[in-house]
Amino acid sequence: MSTASVPVTTGAWRRRTRPSVDDETLARLDAWWRAANYLSVGQIYLLDNPLLREPLRPEHVKPRLLGHWGTTPGLNFLYAHANRAIQDREQPMMYITGPGHGGPGLVANTYLEGTYSEVYSDITQDAEGLRRLFRQFSFPGGIPSHVAPETPGSIHEGGELGYALSHAYGAAFDNPDLLVLAVVGDGEAETGPLATSWHSTKFVNPRTDGVVLPVLHLNGYKIANPTVLARIEEDELTDLMRGYGHRPYVFTAGFDDEEPASVHARFAALLDEVLDEIAEIKQRAAQTEPEEVERPQWPMIVMRTPKGWTCPKVIDGQQVEGSWRSHQVPLSSARDTPEHMKVLEDWMRGYRPEELFDADGHLVDDVAALAPAGQLRMSDNPSTNGGLLLRDLRLPDMRDFAVDVPSPGGAVTEATRVLGQWLTEVIRRNPDNFRLFGPDEVASNRLQAVYDVTAKQWNAEMVPTDREEHLARAGRVMEVLSEHQCQGWLEGYLLTGRHGLFTSYEAFIHIVDSMVNQHAKWLKVTDELEWRRPIASLNYLLSSHVWRQDHNGFSHQDPGFIDHVVNKGADIVRVYLPPDTNTLLATYDHVLRTRQYVNVVVAGKQPGPDFLTIEEAQDHCHRGVGIWEWAGTEEEGQDPDVVLVCAGDIPTIEVLAAADLLRQHLPELRVRVVNVVDLMRLQDEKEHPHGMSNRDFDTVFTTDRPVIFAYHGYPWLIHRLTYRRTGHANLHVRGYKEEGTTTTPFDMVMLNDLDRYHLVMDVIDRVPGLGSRYAGLRQRMADARLAARRYTREHGTDIPEVAEWQWPDVGETGTASGGPTYDTGGDNA
Amino acid sequence: MSTASVPVTTGAWRRRTRPSVDDETLARLDAWWRAANYLSVGQIYLLDNPLLREPLRPEHVKPRLLGHWGTTPGLNFLYAHANRAIQDREQPMMYITGPGHGGPGLVANTYLEGTYSEVYSDITQDAEGLRRLFRQFSFPGGIPSHVAPETPGSIHEGGELGYALSHAYGAAFDNPDLLVLAVVGDGEAETGPLATSWHSTKFVNPRTDGVVLPVLHLNGYKIANPTVLARIEEDELTDLMRGYGHRPYVFTAGFDDEEPASVHARFAALLDEVLDEIAEIKQRAAQTEPEEVERPQWPMIVMRTPKGWTCPKVIDGQQVEGSWRSHQVPLSSARDTPEHMKVLEDWMRGYRPEELFDADGHLVDDVAALAPAGQLRMSDNPSTNGGLLLRDLRLPDMRDFAVDVPSPGGAVTEATRVLGQWLTEVIRRNPDNFRLFGPDEVASNRLQAVYDVTAKQWNAEMVPTDREEHLARAGRVMEVLSEHQCQGWLEGYLLTGRHGLFTSYEAFIHIVDSMVNQHAKWLKVTDELEWRRPIASLNYLLSSHVWRQDHNGFSHQDPGFIDHVVNKGADIVRVYLPPDTNTLLATYDHVLRTRQYVNVVVAGKQPGPDFLTIEEAQDHCHRGVGIWEWAGTEEEGQDPDVVLVCAGDIPTIEVLAAADLLRQHLPELRVRVVNVVDLMRLQDEKEHPHGMSNRDFDTVFTTDRPVIFAYHGYPWLIHRLTYRRTGHANLHVRGYKEEGTTTTPFDMVMLNDLDRYHLVMDVIDRVPGLGSRYAGLRQRMADARLAARRYTREHGTDIPEVAEWQWPDVGETGTASGGPTYDTGGDNA
Repeated sequence: MSTASVPVTTGAWRRRTRPSVDDETLARLDAWWRAANYLSVGQIYLLDNPLLREPLRPEHVKPRLLGHWGTTPGLNFLYAHANRAIQDREQPMMYITGPGHGGPGLVANTYLEGTYSEVYSDITQDAEGLRRLFRQFSFPGGIPSHVAPETPGSIHEGGELGYALSHAYGAAFDNPDLLVLAVVGDGEAETGPLATSWHSTKFVNPRTDGVVLPVLHLNGYKIANPTVLARIEEDELTDLMRGYGHRPYVFTAGFDDEEPASVHARFAALLDEVLDEIAEIKQRAAQTEPEEVERPQWPMIVMRTPKGWTCPKVIDGQQVEGSWRSHQVPLSSARDTPEHMKVLEDWMRGYRPEELFDADGHLVDDVAALAPAGQLRMSDNPSTNGGLLLRDLRLPDMRDFAVDVPSPGGAVTEATRVLGQWLTEVIRRNPDNFRLFGPDEVASNRLQAVYDVTAKQWNAEMVPTDREEHLARAGRVMEVLSEHQCQGWLEGYLLTGRHGLFTSYEAFIHIVDSMVNQHAKWLKVTDELEWRRPIASLNYLLSSHVWRQDHNGFSHQDPGFIDHVVNKGADIVRVYLPPDTNTLLATYDHVLRTRQYVNVVVAGKQPGPDFLTIEEAQDHCHRGVGIWEWAGTEEEGQDPDVVLVCAGDIPTIEVLAAADLLRQHLPELRVRVVNVVDLMRLQDEKEHPHGMSNRDFDTVFTTDRPVIFAYHGYPWLIHRLTYRRTGHANLHVRGYKEEGTTTTPFDMVMLNDLDRYHLVMDVIDRVPGLGSRYAGLRQRMADARLAARRYTREHGTDIPEVAEWQWPDVGETGTASGGPTYDTGGDNA
Repeated sequence: MSTASVPVTTGAWRRRTRPSVDDETLARLDAWWRAANYLSVGQIYLLDNPLLREPLRPEHVKPRLLGHWGTTPGLNFLYAHANRAIQDREQPMMYITGPGHGGPGLVANTYLEGTYSEVYSDITQDAEGLRRLFRQFSFPGGIPSHVAPETPGSIHEGGELGYALSHAYGAAFDNPDLLVLAVVGDGEAETGPLATSWHSTKFVNPRTDGVVLPVLHLNGYKIANPTVLARIEEDELTDLMRGYGHRPYVFTAGFDDEEPASVHARFAALLDEVLDEIAEIKQRAAQTEPEEVERPQWPMIVMRTPKGWTCPKVIDGQQVEGSWRSHQVPLSSARDTPEHMKVLEDWMRGYRPEELFDADGHLVDDVAALAPAGQLRMSDNPSTNGGLLLRDLRLPDMRDFAVDVPSPGGAVTEATRVLGQWLTEVIRRNPDNFRLFGPDEVASNRLQAVYDVTAKQWNAEMVPTDREEHLARAGRVMEVLSEHQCQGWLEGYLLTGRHGLFTSYEAFIHIVDSMVNQHAKWLKVTDELEWRRPIASLNYLLSSHVWRQDHNGFSHQDPGFIDHVVNKGADIVRVYLPPDTNTLLATYDHVLRTRQYVNVVVAGKQPGPDFLTIEEAQDHCHRGVGIWEWAGTEEEGQDPDVVLVCAGDIPTIEVLAAADLLRQHLPELRVRVVNVVDLMRLQDEKEHPHGMSNRDFDTVFTTDRPVIFAYHGYPWLIHRLTYRRTGHANLHVRGYKEEGTTTTPFDMVMLNDLDRYHLVMDVIDRVPGLGSRYAGLRQRMADARLAARRYTREHGTDIPEVAEWQWPDVGETGTASGGPTYDTGGDNA
């Protein structure tokens, strides 16, 4: 394997330039912090009078107070200090806000940096701009209260908690000069995904990747409760951080009367110490071969401050600062009494806005000077608008990797194994912007050819045999047994302008249902933001699918991820069910070129028959839905008697086997066989960009003939997608029925009534006139089914006539030379 | 609050009875371990010749080898030692197998204990029983390869990894005498849910709850990779465990030539030390008031052994024991060559079966003597078949808590707040077998009345103000910011025979999609196992729902959990959308009485109008779907012109407001108003036990009139559920459309076109003959909509005619005295 072309450090990671921070800088830090806090409070509370140039009156205050203050002052404090350090070191840095409801804080800082006004030209750097900035926040027609896609510098909304560190590490991979400052809220720290994401320390390469500096912000309270990590002994907490692979630095402030200058001096010194330590690690790594680097103890900061820091300590006799009561709106009503109005006004004036903004409402130069220049501003770091950095992948010609298919069914291959060969070349050609993520399933899903050119990146301890097992300090494959980690890393990687794919069990991809929700929502919103550039799609490859759980059974069967994603916007979602190897190649060749989508590709890894040449596969994928004339018995100029439809690899085998049976036993029947590879084609063109027109749909599926549809997943989805079609009442769908365990593939198919015999029986039942005339054939099909089941129960394998069935030689394209349709080996997982 | 009636320790938790384990016991431990290992290998490999009484021939070996060996010998080792300790101390114990694919091991131990044969009478304690035991494993028509519901003593399948500790703690709550031995695999330890579940140490009460003893089983490898926790320095690992609140004990064996007796002696001594330490903690706690106990450093064991321990070290020149190659079937083909056959035979004979089983194939008495008696066998602990212990809840009469509703719309209440009052009494009457779980949202979801009688259980540090905030060492409410933890704890609690409910955000309940899949599958399988007794249903209360995310916006909007659960079996799933307070009460009064279901209840927490008296609500819930005659303008004896249907609290308001508008503007129109509270009623009676007959459905919805359906969630679900109904082509569904952010409730409704004005326009568009005649009215509706939006954008609140709309006084039941339909306060979350 080769990692020679992985980029390495190019000049960042300086040590501190001054031994300590001077008083002027400390004053500037405090002024910035006050300004950011002031703007944050203003956003939550004010409709008008943004600079308090006149006494605050009720009509200046929003009628509904929405937003979250509690975490905001801590975020602002850290932002100010990060700016100081960036200036001092010219260190590219980005800021990930785990507690995403600190939205007003991040908006405030990006406004102070000027970025906000550059992106949103109506939010100017003056009093009127401030008024608009305040008014739009969490206001109808305005911006959300979270660190949303609308916030410059954000790649992480933090609405659903738990992914701050995963996103941070995803951003850091292959960005060797980047420092990702990742604030972890002590609320989100209780989530599972966050709890395991600390272990990312074992997967990041000190030389070829960037650095994540986690700041665990202990402000002590959630919505209504204290947080766990704020309520364990400090020794226990620092043990925990060491256990995660960190060297913890603890900083506490805000609980006493310490002067601001002293607080700032202490934190600036601590940050310098930590950044110097990181610089030293990076410099040491720069002098080491990427594959020889050893995992350091990465520093992290525990920052303990009061929740709602700097807001009123007590309101109406109840503690607010330092309590859960400051989580959202500390003063929950201001307009109701003069006393409350005074509390708000005093609070805001306490930040001394008159020192911070000039007569026009412009931030005074001395404070503005804390902002770094241009793209060194964290809100303007191009990685935070990843589409700016996105390069097209150099994709090899899939035809060079295609399977030779002399006739339909005339070859037998493992689809994902062949895809792995093509991906090997993708990796070779794109050594620094493409990664493969999987929860310990890359080899199990038969993509292991990639290890010819790369490795699994692993920065934990190594033993001598690990190299043979394709582990290395740097590599394109990221494997950890956490779907949350894989998804979060990949999201972070994509959002910062790179490409990737996630391969996993179909059933367990539900683990990230809520994450894909959030990512899809992010994509949908960014589609509408001109300044956000399109990013590469989120690509899934679900190979250990519902029909082949021979090893694992019922608990590993669930095809519902497709249903889940289809609920997200049609602009975002694409679902592909390639029936054979060449269609899988053609599908992946397409999805790796797309932007702003969630592409779900389901394709088995077991040996299966190939039906299409690569050219046919390309055409088929282009159409999305196609009539397989070679499989049917239609006559030109006549309507078919019945349409058999398949979507998914196993359903395709069963439909073809049924077509074969029909050809033998009902040769006069005009059967049409349709295969669906792009599921969204079934929808109306008005519902989905890939949707077929009614005319096209009716041409393929007819409006009045029985349609027997064998579908990979829960059958209802097909009804849903075709609901408005003229012929939908003729549609009979068979699919997965949530039925128990079995260990052979055809037995599983039978258990769910998706088998060839059932499909033939369906045809007899549904084509007018066949029922009574072919009662004998129907009975023989039922008998064949019973015989197959009996055989399986007796021998533990599928009956040979099924296991070895192959599409008969139908002339034209050559002689069928296929092997078994159902592999009887284990599934290696 | 009172915890006086919480059960306390009654005599378990003895210290060791003997200073050390004698040689005879050590030999018995080893024999049991060999027997369990032998039976495990036998299950994976053999069809026949179970005792190797004749030379092994190919036809004795299964044609397909399925199952997982790697984790099994470690599980067997631990099981044997647990049995020894149980006997010694008479300590009730249960065994949770995180690595659930160690199924053959657990089946083996339960067979050795006799429980398996008691439950499955055809699996006898003789050679023929052994043959059947081996043959059925992972065989068509047999048992799954995991620790499935079919396995006696299991409450945890471990197919999807990550929930071993959450389940263990759920089992331990309110079981003060129970020790839960929970094996955590080092693979699953990488998952998020597992990583945070260690923090359960801060939520368990040493006196009133049982004890979880985690054993982190480091066997070093997953399917294809080393594990993270096996590849960090031991200091780092023990720091991590201390950080989680544990005192770690490290045990290593199997990497050298140490004699088995020595290995057993070391582990027995360590286990005694750990159990004595636990006994001491429990005894100290027993002498302390439940609310005064302090969190101890709970012991845990790190057990480092080779993966596949005791299998062949090398096969075909490749390392197997101690490598990922032993994860599944170490010898992946046996029948293929005589050499492989010999490897298998030698491996099995190495356990010396002739010493373990007598001539009849019965386990020899001396080995069998290691099994504890009766219910002290872990496989027979009644908590593992929780239905055996389940007591009906003592439910207070909901009528005592009902809202007085003098006329429809004649009261305004917060539905969940009233439910909270009823739950308070539920908790008072059921102090030891009912708990409330939530990710920091119990108060936010307005159930805080429960704190009148109980508290949030919190065993981390406390500060003086915590008591006011309802934290205590023992209490019925479990809050942690991890949906995974809440779900896992509740599952463990239910599976061991208790009751509970989980309240959460509707959007973020997707975090546990995959967990509810697994639980639903567990319920489905246990429905078919006579010996498994029914357990209480898994009840959700989703209160911060999609329509009221004023604070949080788009990222917090997703009603798709309903869609997700509906994919699970109809036998299992129930979905309720109570439209007002009394129907919520009646719904919960029902669901807390049910068994073996997943009940999803979605009900808002904001003030909303009440429509039904408690008697009407009970009748309505009983029917599930009802015509609200008071809201419509039908005439007896005539078909309605249009049917307006609502499901969900917000849609109900909009439909009623639309009905009100139609009454004013189109008084001659015969409008029927239907409310759906039990969503599954929409399905056909053949599809779901709650389904309506076609005749009933057609009577309510008509077969030929336009049906305008305002639905809480994604509209497609309604099409899916009603797909086969005669009138489905007349159905027009409005629901959530995955559309952006806004901060006022009616603006949100408008954004998704679910508003009253749209519904009236729908009626005009769809009732034949209205379109051209009422173009003016249609235009006025569109104008009203624009005016409402303009007002909101200007003022930040909803237009008063909407916000203050109330159902008009229509006589009969009294004078309407309602307040606002849309609360304009914050949502406190």
